[in-house]
Amino acid sequence: MKAAVVTALGAPLVVREVPVPEPGPGQVLVRIETCGLCHTDIHAARGEWPVKPKDQLIPGHEGVGIVEAVGAGDLPVAVGQRVAMPWLGDACGHCRYCIDGWETYCTDPAYTGYTMDGGYAEYAVAWASHVVPVPDGVDPVDASPLTCAGVTTYKALKVAEPRPDETCMVVGIGGLGHLGLQYARVFGCRTVAVDVHDDKLQLAKELGADHVLDARGDQAAQLAEIGGVDIALVTVPSPAAMRAAHAALNPNGRLVLVGLPADNRLELPVFETVLKGVKVIGSLVGTRNDLAACFDLHARGLTRVVTETRRLEDVNACFEEVLAGEVPARLVFDLR
Amino acid sequence: MKAAVVTALGAPLVVREVPVPEPGPGQVLVRIETCGLCHTDIHAARGEWPVKPKDQLIPGHEGVGIVEAVGAGDLPVAVGQRVAMPWLGDACGHCRYCIDGWETYCTDPAYTGYTMDGGYAEYAVAWASHVVPVPDGVDPVDASPLTCAGVTTYKALKVAEPRPDETCMVVGIGGLGHLGLQYARVFGCRTVAVDVHDDKLQLAKELGADHVLDARGDQAAQLAEIGGVDIALVTVPSPAAMRAAHAALNPNGRLVLVGLPADNRLELPVFETVLKGVKVIGSLVGTRNDLAACFDLHARGLTRVVTETRRLEDVNACFEEVLAGEVPARLVFDLR
Amino acid sequence: MKAAVVTALGAPLVVREVPVPEPGPGQVLVRIETCGLCHTDIHAARGEWPVKPKDQLIPGHEGVGIVEAVGAGDLPVAVGQRVAMPWLGDACGHCRYCIDGWETYCTDPAYTGYTMDGGYAEYAVAWASHVVPVPDGVDPVDASPLTCAGVTTYKALKVAEPRPDETCMVVGIGGLGHLGLQYARVFGCRTVAVDVHDDKLQLAKELGADHVLDARGDQAAQLAEIGGVDIALVTVPSPAAMRAAHAALNPNGRLVLVGLPADNRLELPVFETVLKGVKVIGSLVGTRNDLAACFDLHARGLTRVVTETRRLEDVNACFEEVLAGEVPARLVFDLR
Amino acid sequence: MKAAVVTALGAPLVVREVPVPEPGPGQVLVRIETCGLCHTDIHAARGEWPVKPKDQLIPGHEGVGIVEAVGAGDLPVAVGQRVAMPWLGDACGHCRYCIDGWETYCTDPAYTGYTMDGGYAEYAVAWASHVVPVPDGVDPVDASPLTCAGVTTYKALKVAEPRPDETCMVVGIGGLGHLGLQYARVFGCRTVAVDVHDDKLQLAKELGADHVLDARGDQAAQLAEIGGVDIALVTVPSPAAMRAAHAALNPNGRLVLVGLPADNRLELPVFETVLKGVKVIGSLVGTRNDLAACFDLHARGLTRVVTETRRLEDVNACFEEVLAGEVPARLVFDLR
Repeated sequence: MKAAVVTALGAPLVVREVPVPEPGPGQVLVRIETCGLCHTDIHAARGEWPVKPKDQLIPGHEGVGIVEAVGAGDLPVAVGQRVAMPWLGDACGHCRYCIDGWETYCTDPAYTGYTMDGGYAEYAVAWASHVVPVPDGVDPVDASPLTCAGVTTYKALKVAEPRPDETCMVVGIGGLGHLGLQYARVFGCRTVAVDVHDDKLQLAKELGADHVLDARGDQAAQLAEIGGVDIALVTVPSPAAMRAAHAALNPNGRLVLVGLPADNRLELPVFETVLKGVKVIGSLVGTRNDLAACFDLHARGLTRVVTETRRLEDVNACFEEVLAGEVPARLVFDLR
Repeated sequence: MKAAVVTALGAPLVVREVPVPEPGPGQVLVRIETCGLCHTDIHAARGEWPVKPKDQLIPGHEGVGIVEAVGAGDLPVAVGQRVAMPWLGDACGHCRYCIDGWETYCTDPAYTGYTMDGGYAEYAVAWASHVVPVPDGVDPVDASPLTCAGVTTYKALKVAEPRPDETCMVVGIGGLGHLGLQYARVFGCRTVAVDVHDDKLQLAKELGADHVLDARGDQAAQLAEIGGVDIALVTVPSPAAMRAAHAALNPNGRLVLVGLPADNRLELPVFETVLKGVKVIGSLVGTRNDLAACFDLHARGLTRVVTETRRLEDVNACFEEVLAGEVPARLVFDLR
Repeated sequence: MKAAVVTALGAPLVVREVPVPEPGPGQVLVRIETCGLCHTDIHAARGEWPVKPKDQLIPGHEGVGIVEAVGAGDLPVAVGQRVAMPWLGDACGHCRYCIDGWETYCTDPAYTGYTMDGGYAEYAVAWASHVVPVPDGVDPVDASPLTCAGVTTYKALKVAEPRPDETCMVVGIGGLGHLGLQYARVFGCRTVAVDVHDDKLQLAKELGADHVLDARGDQAAQLAEIGGVDIALVTVPSPAAMRAAHAALNPNGRLVLVGLPADNRLELPVFETVLKGVKVIGSLVGTRNDLAACFDLHARGLTRVVTETRRLEDVNACFEEVLAGEVPARLVFDLR
Repeated sequence: MKAAVVTALGAPLVVREVPVPEPGPGQVLVRIETCGLCHTDIHAARGEWPVKPKDQLIPGHEGVGIVEAVGAGDLPVAVGQRVAMPWLGDACGHCRYCIDGWETYCTDPAYTGYTMDGGYAEYAVAWASHVVPVPDGVDPVDASPLTCAGVTTYKALKVAEPRPDETCMVVGIGGLGHLGLQYARVFGCRTVAVDVHDDKLQLAKELGADHVLDARGDQAAQLAEIGGVDIALVTVPSPAAMRAAHAALNPNGRLVLVGLPADNRLELPVFETVLKGVKVIGSLVGTRNDLAACFDLHARGLTRVVTETRRLEDVNACFEEVLAGEVPARLVFDLR
C-alpha cells in the first residue's frame, strides 16, 4: 500500500509502498478514504514535542474509511462499516479517568498517528473499541476534519458549559475555529467571530456569526460595544490573542484554550481573573461520544465543513502550505 | 464613637472620636463587637488598588455586632440581632449577576470598608438586605474571620466543585488557608496542607490534614508520592506557589486563585493546561448564602477559627505585624 | 381605563371601566399593548387552586406594554421603555432562594394577575425591579406568550441540562409546547414532537422537529425505532402522557413536568426510575434572566410564536375556546 | 469448594460442594473471605424480577477476597491482591453510557450473583476489569457491605449533588441507610435520620446525625421545625415513606429513590413537584470509581460499618431473618 512515512524526525516525509498491516485481536483494518491534515501531524513529523512519536511513523489522526477486515474477538464494528480513527487510538478502560467518562485523560493511552500508525496511508489498523462509526450521509471529506478539528472545538465548548443566554467568542476562523463557531451556535450562544483575514471574516458571516470582528481594528472597543463575552474559545496559538480574549470576558467568563503557543507561556492577569471570577480552561480533543455527537450534528445539517482536498503525494508541500498560513480551509488527503 | 479613620491614603490610621452614623431607609445601625483585620484593609488604607476607596474611610469588612437601630422600611433584620457586615455591602438586585445568584459580581455594588465605612469603629451603618445573621452559639471573635477569610475560601472551593473522591491541596495555612483546609474536609476531600512554617504545618496537622507538606523540601516529589492533587487552593499571593500548585494537578485538576500577587502576573504553562484539561479559576468572596453556610458549619462544630484579639487603638501596629508576616493567626479587633 | 375583572370566583369576568392605578415607590405604570391568555388565568378566575387570588382580580401575567410613569426611587426602567410583566411580580431579594438565583421559589413573592392585578387591562402597575425589558424588534404580540409560555418551557428544559448529543421529546405542541420544541432545538437537541392533532403535527414539522410522532398511533414502537429519548418535556396535564413519556426515557433520562393534572397524581413506576437512573423534574416559570434570554433568542430569529389576537371584550368567549381545546395557538389580547 | 446454590427459583438454597471455577481470559479467580447479604439476593433466589437469573445461580454481589489466579491477558490486578466483586460484574466499555462514565447503565452488562455466579462460595470468578481493589486497612467484613449498600447510597447522594449548606434526610437507618447517613455527613450536609425503631434511632445518634426523627410521631411537624430538607434519600421500599419525604422537601429539593416497592408504584403529587421545583431521582448502585471512593472514605476513618457475621451454611435462616425485618445490621457471611 501507499503511505507517507516519517523516516527521520524533521526530514520530509517519504511517500512509498509499505506492507498492508494486519489487525490483531481487538483490531480492525480500515481502507482509508480520506485523512485530514492537522498541525499536530507537523509537530509529530518534526519531533517537536517532549515525548517523541513511534519510529517510522505514518501520521494522521483524521483518517476515515471502510472496515475491510476484523481481528479476533467480539468486536463492536463490522466489515463494510465506515469509521473514523481519531487521535485517541485506545484507552485502558479501567483507570480513574476512563471509568469517569474522561478517556481522553487515560493514564495509558495510544495515540493514532503518533504512538500508532495513522491515516496517511491506504490502509491502517485501529482498535475496534476506539473507531467511531460515521453515519450515512456524512461525506468522508467532511468526516475527516470533524474527527479532530471538530471534536476538539465541540468538546472545548462543552467543558465551558455554554448557555443560550451567553455570548461566545471564537478567535481564529480557520480549520478549528470555523467549526467552533458553528458549535457555539449549536449550543444556542450569541456568537462573535474574530480574525485578521478578510476571507475568514467573510466565512464567519456566511456561517451565521452574530458579530464579526476584525482584530486588526480596536478589538477592545468593539467588544465593549457588544457587551463583552461570556466564553472565549481561542483556536490560535497566540498568547496575545489569549490575553485579549481574557480581557473581553464578563464576570463568570470562561477562556478556553486548545492551541499551544511556541513558548508555552500565557501571562495571566491574576487580579482580573479573581475579580471577575474567570475560569481559564484547557481542553484536549474529545471522547468517542463527543465525536459521535459531531457526526450526528453534521448529519442533522447543523455544521458545514470547509475543506480542500489534496493528494497524499503532495504531503510535504501541504505541510509548507499550512506553515505559511495560506490555507483557506482544512486540507484533506483524498486516497480514493 | 471611636473609629480608626484613613485620613490620607498611605498615612497611618487615626483612631479618634467621630459621630455615630444614622441608618437611612433600608439600613441598620450595628454596634460592632469585633472586626477582623484582612490584608485588603491595608491595601485600602494605602490606596494600592486602581479604584480608590471613599474619603475618610473607616476600613473593616469583617465587622460583627448587634443591630441597635433600624431605618425605614420592611427590613429583614431586627433590633437585638447579631449580624455580620461582609465585603459585599450592597448589590443592585436586578442586574444579570444578582438575578442569577452571583451578587458578588454585581455591576453596581457597595463594598464595606471601601466604598462604605466599615467595622473599625464602635458603630457602623449597613444595608439591612446585606448583613448576615450570626447564629446563636457562634462567638463574634470567630464570626469575624468567617465573614471574609472563611467565606472567601469556602466559595473558592465551592466553585471548584470538590468531590469526596478527590484530593484537595491548600497552599498557605494562614488566615485564609487554615479555614480553606477545614472546608476541604467539609466537602469530603482528602486534604494536603502546604506551608513553609513549622507552626503552620503543626496547625494543619491539628486541623486534620491527611497530608502535611513542607514546601521548603522537594514539594514535587512529595506530591507525586501522594498521587497528585485534583484541586489546589492557593491562598498566598505568590506566582511561584501558583505554578507549583499547577504542576501538582492531575488531569481535570482545578487551580483556584484568591490571592493577588504584587505584579499581577501568573505565567501559565499552556501545554500542561491543555493536555491535562486543567481549569484555573478566580474567585472573589462569597454571597450572603455562602456566609450563612460558613456560620452554620461553625455552629455545627465543623470549623475552628484561630484568632488573636487586639485593641483598635493598636491598628497601625497590627498592620505592621501583618505586613511582617509574623501573625500566627487572624487578628481580630475586640471593641466590646 | 378598561379592564376585565373577576367580580366573583367562578363568575364570568366583567369588562368595565375602572380607575387607572398609580405606581407607588419602586413601581411603574405600564400602558398595556398586549396580554396573552394562559390557562392559569382561568384557574385564577375560577378560584380552582388552594390559595385564592386577590379580591376583584384583574388577571393576566403575559402583559406587555410601555412604561408610562414611574414611582419614587432609583428605578432600573424608564418612561417610554417596552416591558413585560411576568408571573413573578416581585420577590423579596434576600431569602435563600432569591440570593441563589432561584427567585421563582422566593418565600415571599407577588404574582402578577393573582396576588396583584395583571395585564387584562389598559394599564397596570408593576414592580420596577421585576418587569423585563422587551428588546427592539420583538413584537408585543410575540412578546406576550414568551412572557409565560416561553419562559416556562425554556426554563423547564434548562433545568434538565440538555446537551446537543441528546434527544428531546416535547409532548403537546400547543401554546407551551410549540415554544418548548423550538427551545429544544436552541439547546442543540435532536427533537421529537408528539401530539394527537394533525395541525399541531404539521406545525411541529414546520418548526423543524427531527421526528414528528402521532400519539394516536403506537407511540412506544415509534420511540423505540428512534432510539428512545433523553429528555421529555410534557406540556399537557395528562398523567397518561407523563407515564408514556417516562417509558420512552433512556438511562439518565429526565422527565420534566410543567402541567398540573386535575387529580394531581402521577403514578410513577419506581423500578424503571431506579434501574434507568431517571429524574422526574418539576419546573415553575423562570427568572427575569430566563425571560430576557427568551426575548433575546426571539430577537435573534431563533423562535417563532404562533398566536391569534383577540379583543379583551371577548375574554369570556376566549376562556370557553381554550377550555374546549379548540385553540390553534396562543390567544393574545390586543389592547392597542 | 463450598457454595450456596439456587437449585430452583423459590426453593431454599442448597449449600454443597461444587468445582472451583477457572478464570478465562480477562478474568480472575477470587478466594472469597466475606460476602454480604443484600435483599436483592433474596429477590434473585426467588426469581421475583421480570428478568430471571442464570441457572444454578450462586448469589452474592458483596464478595470480597484475595486474587488467587489470573486468566490470560494484561490484567489490572495481580495475584495476592484483595478485591471486591460488585453487582456490576462487567460492562461493554464502548456503549454510550460506558464512554460517558455511566457504566452502571451499560447496554450489555453482566451482574455478579445474577447473570454470573457470585460470592456465596469459597471461590468465584470475576472480570479483572471490574473488581475493585480493597485498600490496606479496610477489613473484608467492612468492605462487603460497602461493596453494595455503601456504594449504592454514596452514589444516590452524589447524583443529588449535595452541598454543605443543605439538609439531607435519610429515611431508614438499616443496611443502606446507616451508611447513607454517614455519606450525607461526608458531603458536609446537615443530617436528619428517620426510622421507626429505637435501636436504629440510637444508632443514628451515635453516627452523628444532627437530627433524629421518630417517624412513629408527627413527622411533618418535626420536619417543619427543622426547616424542611433539601435532599431526602429513602432507603426503605415504602411508597408512604417516599411520599412523606417528598412532602418534607424544600424548593429545589431532591428525593432520591433506591428501594423498590412491591407494587412498583409511587403516587407523585404533581402540583407540589412543579411548584417547589422538586426532582425525583432514581439511582442504581455505582461505578468502580464510586466504590473505590467508598473504600477510601472508610480507610480515612469517615465511615463505620455495622455488621453481624454469619456462616454460609445458615444462608436460608439468614434470608428469613432479613425478611422478618429483625436484622440489627448488615449480615455478612464469613468464609475464612
